[in-house]
Amino acid sequence: MNRSSDSSLTGIRGCLIDCLEDPFLISDYRAVRWFLDGLLVIQSGKILACGNYEQLIESYPGLKITHYPDRIITPGLIDTHVHFPQTAIVASYGKQLLEWLELYTFPEERKFQDFEYAAGVAEIFLDELLRNGTTTAMVWTTVFPESTEALFQAAQRRNLRLIAGKIMMDRNAPDYLLDTAETAYRQSRSLIEQWHDRDRLSYALTPRFAPTSTPEQLQITQQLQSEFPSVYLQTHLSENLGELAWVKELFPDDRDYLAVYERFGLVHDRSVFAHGIHLSESEFARLASAGATLAFCPTSNLFLGSGLFKLHEAKAPERPIAVGLATDIGGGTSFSLLQTASEAYKVSQLQNQTLSAVQMLFLLTLGGARSLSLDHAIGNFEPGKEADFVVWNCRSTPIMDFRNRAEIQTWEDLNDRLFSLLMMGDDRSVDCVYILGDRVSLPQVATAPDKAFG
Amino acid sequence: MNRSSDSSLTGIRGCLIDCLEDPFLISDYRAVRWFLDGLLVIQSGKILACGNYEQLIESYPGLKITHYPDRIITPGLIDTHVHFPQTAIVASYGKQLLEWLELYTFPEERKFQDFEYAAGVAEIFLDELLRNGTTTAMVWTTVFPESTEALFQAAQRRNLRLIAGKIMMDRNAPDYLLDTAETAYRQSRSLIEQWHDRDRLSYALTPRFAPTSTPEQLQITQQLQSEFPSVYLQTHLSENLGELAWVKELFPDDRDYLAVYERFGLVHDRSVFAHGIHLSESEFARLASAGATLAFCPTSNLFLGSGLFKLHEAKAPERPIAVGLATDIGGGTSFSLLQTASEAYKVSQLQNQTLSAVQMLFLLTLGGARSLSLDHAIGNFEPGKEADFVVWNCRSTPIMDFRNRAEIQTWEDLNDRLFSLLMMGDDRSVDCVYILGDRVSLPQVATAPDKAFG
Repeated sequence: MNRSSDSSLTGIRGCLIDCLEDPFLISDYRAVRWFLDGLLVIQSGKILACGNYEQLIESYPGLKITHYPDRIITPGLIDTHVHFPQTAIVASYGKQLLEWLELYTFPEERKFQDFEYAAGVAEIFLDELLRNGTTTAMVWTTVFPESTEALFQAAQRRNLRLIAGKIMMDRNAPDYLLDTAETAYRQSRSLIEQWHDRDRLSYALTPRFAPTSTPEQLQITQQLQSEFPSVYLQTHLSENLGELAWVKELFPDDRDYLAVYERFGLVHDRSVFAHGIHLSESEFARLASAGATLAFCPTSNLFLGSGLFKLHEAKAPERPIAVGLATDIGGGTSFSLLQTASEAYKVSQLQNQTLSAVQMLFLLTLGGARSLSLDHAIGNFEPGKEADFVVWNCRSTPIMDFRNRAEIQTWEDLNDRLFSLLMMGDDRSVDCVYILGDRVSLPQVATAPDKAFG
Repeated sequence: MNRSSDSSLTGIRGCLIDCLEDPFLISDYRAVRWFLDGLLVIQSGKILACGNYEQLIESYPGLKITHYPDRIITPGLIDTHVHFPQTAIVASYGKQLLEWLELYTFPEERKFQDFEYAAGVAEIFLDELLRNGTTTAMVWTTVFPESTEALFQAAQRRNLRLIAGKIMMDRNAPDYLLDTAETAYRQSRSLIEQWHDRDRLSYALTPRFAPTSTPEQLQITQQLQSEFPSVYLQTHLSENLGELAWVKELFPDDRDYLAVYERFGLVHDRSVFAHGIHLSESEFARLASAGATLAFCPTSNLFLGSGLFKLHEAKAPERPIAVGLATDIGGGTSFSLLQTASEAYKVSQLQNQTLSAVQMLFLLTLGGARSLSLDHAIGNFEPGKEADFVVWNCRSTPIMDFRNRAEIQTWEDLNDRLFSLLMMGDDRSVDCVYILGDRVSLPQVATAPDKAFG
């Protein structure tokens, strides 16, 4: 078959790696696919073919190709839990969850009732996602629909696949941040009608967490869910022991934290729960049987001292829960999902469990896509999927350059290189990012005027 | 007093911050000193004066000044435990301590019997320290005296203050890495005579850890210590549970791990023990009373799954042990002591203890100097100390730039800025480094040819 005459096709040549299956259920080697010299063929923003360069190019003579030698190309990374209005408060000092919200988060979120302010931060936030190789995210805005609107507009202009929602919060927070059951219903509904399934955007119902919503508000969340069955639900679950005690106090009749959400029909296969540090075996099992998913936020869990997520329990083969990785900016300390994976590795090591490079790649790509029910569209290089991908440089710092000078010649080499990228890489490791087959242009990074080196 | 005519004086103007006391024993506010607009006066590589610019400049009219506006200047950072021959194996996958040594460390260390190889890595290693703002380190070489020689020569050419020693290891490692009690004695002695107290260099007796030295070798270590009382002793202690069990097996008559070293007179005020994760209360107390110190290596302790160092127990006011921070390259994952401090913060948060920015600065500077008995020479800006310092840019990445745009006007601003530097900074945050009052030139960092941004 010769499709060379089609000028709408473009090719990307380089070392390709993606996951086809879940390496928590089968071996790394069987879950992963790689081509040391691979070719992606792209048509109209989607993957048309993926394979070995020498073999595939025969079918596409004359294909216009961009070649990335000495690079690794993966599907775009997926951040399954991130708060865009907390971009400015990353690394705020010294508190655990509940105090941290009071002291830093709430005052900053207040500013987002101003559409212009929100729109400005939305651009910085999306720049930052892309600069770090994150092409899809499930995003929290604030209680103000203006902030949700601002984010959706900015993401739409960039053709990003993104899920977001307005926070619902009608108690136990400063007055200036509260909505009501009624306004939450009206505003959420209006945003859903305007943005859900528009271009690559989706809406998520977003009650902050059980303590900040009245039963009435959780009730209207359920009502919206039944009126719009395809919208997502995102909330927080079992992050911090102080939070658990508070939930117990506010909802004494529910047997555990998850039961509060279950009572309102909010635990289903489009629900994404952030954290889940202190879940019981029963809660794990009920999440699994509902098809609900967890967002593992290691930099945040460590920074706020929340605890160690039990990844291998969540992914236990007898009832695997879909898990994605997440930066949880601004409780998290980095926009880099590489650095997030590095912390996930450390959290696993502390529990005497090893996390392989392929398992981390899976969590960041296909696993993240599955946990957001987006694996029909993104997550790997299967034909028909959207061509969001990242070109990585594993020699982006002097120490990585020293470690990674040898050419990649075998699977073992590639596996080691990928591991080093996950452990040592940062935003500098991103050579470039493609969205729907188009290379993204981002603002140049300012460099320090006095810099003697670097 | 007017000292303006002295052309040997130079000035550095900018925001200065250093520690004068230990903030684990008194409040941050009393332990720290800062000048939002400060001046360092330097003469012959040493600090002559440190103070408020407006006040101090009157005594030095005509002083040749380099001004660093919008920067923070701290004493040079101190890495109290790092293995230079492991530079190439950072981020090696998936093992805990004992297997990791077998699989990755020992084969790499073997290469260092070649002086040329060792000399090449020594340059890369020292570049990397300086690029990260580390001006002093206590360094491990290998069992081969060639590697120690190579490192000392390289450090001497750069005028660095550095402590290092040849590993002593005469059992339980591959044959190609073993010395004997006798060769260890002879080679160590020769290196001491050649390098100890030469320029800014000092020697450390370096038995790898109890399991890899015979009692005979520990005995000759004691003998060397008594022949050269001012040399240091560095070793590993209580890092990993498998290691603890092994020590118990090899030394059944010693009541605990520390007791092995005590029996051979190796626990004293020039001893630096790396890790100390699993120490008992008795071991903490005995370390304190001996004046021995601990090197806290958080990125390594997490990466190898060793456990959580009990910093606040070690620093308990009733018997504070001097503690320094350490990268422990290559068990550690970063040469950056900022990233190391960030992980130390997270380790503390997981134990429900907060680590302040000033406490972290102390551990990295004056605390590190005290733990290496070098506080007469380095660690802060007191007159007479050596002028090793770092000019930091707290806006070195887009996200840091966004967070830290406001001018520093108060102590609270500076404290917050310092915290963000410690949490989010990396090698890019180092504007420049001064050694003995001279600005260091380092090789330019290669940038990726295909980079679309950054």
